[in-house]
Amino acid sequence: MSDFFTDEFFMKEALKEARYAFEEGEIPVGAVVTCNEQVVARAHNQTERLNDVTAHAEMLALTAAADALGSKYLKECTLYVTLEPCTMCAGAAFWTQVGRIVFGATDEKRGYSLLPNSILHPATLVKNGVLSEKSSTLLQEFFRIRRNKKA
Amino acid sequence: MSDFFTDEFFMKEALKEARYAFEEGEIPVGAVVTCNEQVVARAHNQTERLNDVTAHAEMLALTAAADALGSKYLKECTLYVTLEPCTMCAGAAFWTQVGRIVFGATDEKRGYSLLPNSILHPATLVKNGVLSEKSSTLLQEFFRIRRNKKA
Repeated sequence: MSDFFTDEFFMKEALKEARYAFEEGEIPVGAVVTCNEQVVARAHNQTERLNDVTAHAEMLALTAAADALGSKYLKECTLYVTLEPCTMCAGAAFWTQVGRIVFGATDEKRGYSLLPNSILHPATLVKNGVLSEKSSTLLQEFFRIRRNKKA
Repeated sequence: MSDFFTDEFFMKEALKEARYAFEEGEIPVGAVVTCNEQVVARAHNQTERLNDVTAHAEMLALTAAADALGSKYLKECTLYVTLEPCTMCAGAAFWTQVGRIVFGATDEKRGYSLLPNSILHPATLVKNGVLSEKSSTLLQEFFRIRRNKKA
């Protein structure tokens, strides 16, 4: 990895996506997929807009990456996502055989790592905690506003 | 449940979908989603056609059901699927809060029930083994033909 294209660099791109979600009233989670230090797909959570609880940032980004590369498998790719993937998204990542997953904040309720067995592909490397505070702050702000609206 | 619209009745509809997949050279898994004894969505595995390893029958059927009903949650619905859902699909079912899952054959390699904790929503009821032999036979035939082609 070059000095310029660090994990923090690409996580900032995922955070941009999370902010788009925030502005659209979606739970702010963003993701990008990179291959050879290039972003090949980017997405943010769209469960409200698409009326689809499976439209998580990771699902959309992984599908878009396969489409962009013309490859079902993403062995040479890295998925950057601002929040730890849930079981569904980790299961999707398994099928793609994605090379690396880099995530920001830990999801203490729905994160895949709460399961006792890793459900990721054995070849997938994981790094967590990258710019996690920025991700957490955005999520906390989103839920604070939502609570206030409901109150 | 009426005498006519049994679980076997709807599993036969899911098996029709699995046969479409078979004819298209896809791993033959089919699914339907019902609500009030009506099929509201049907799908079969399309991972090859869509070049998308996440395009499992269940993912497509759950998304189509939410779209058809205009409801993100499928609490009153039943997902019929010819093969036990994988971790990804069970994770998707969790988010939809689908009322029931009825599946045919057990997936001894990738079935969600291999995990020690249930990853389904606590309100989701499960029934398995419905017309499982028909599902297994179709899968075995698919892989037999594929092996012979490669040989």
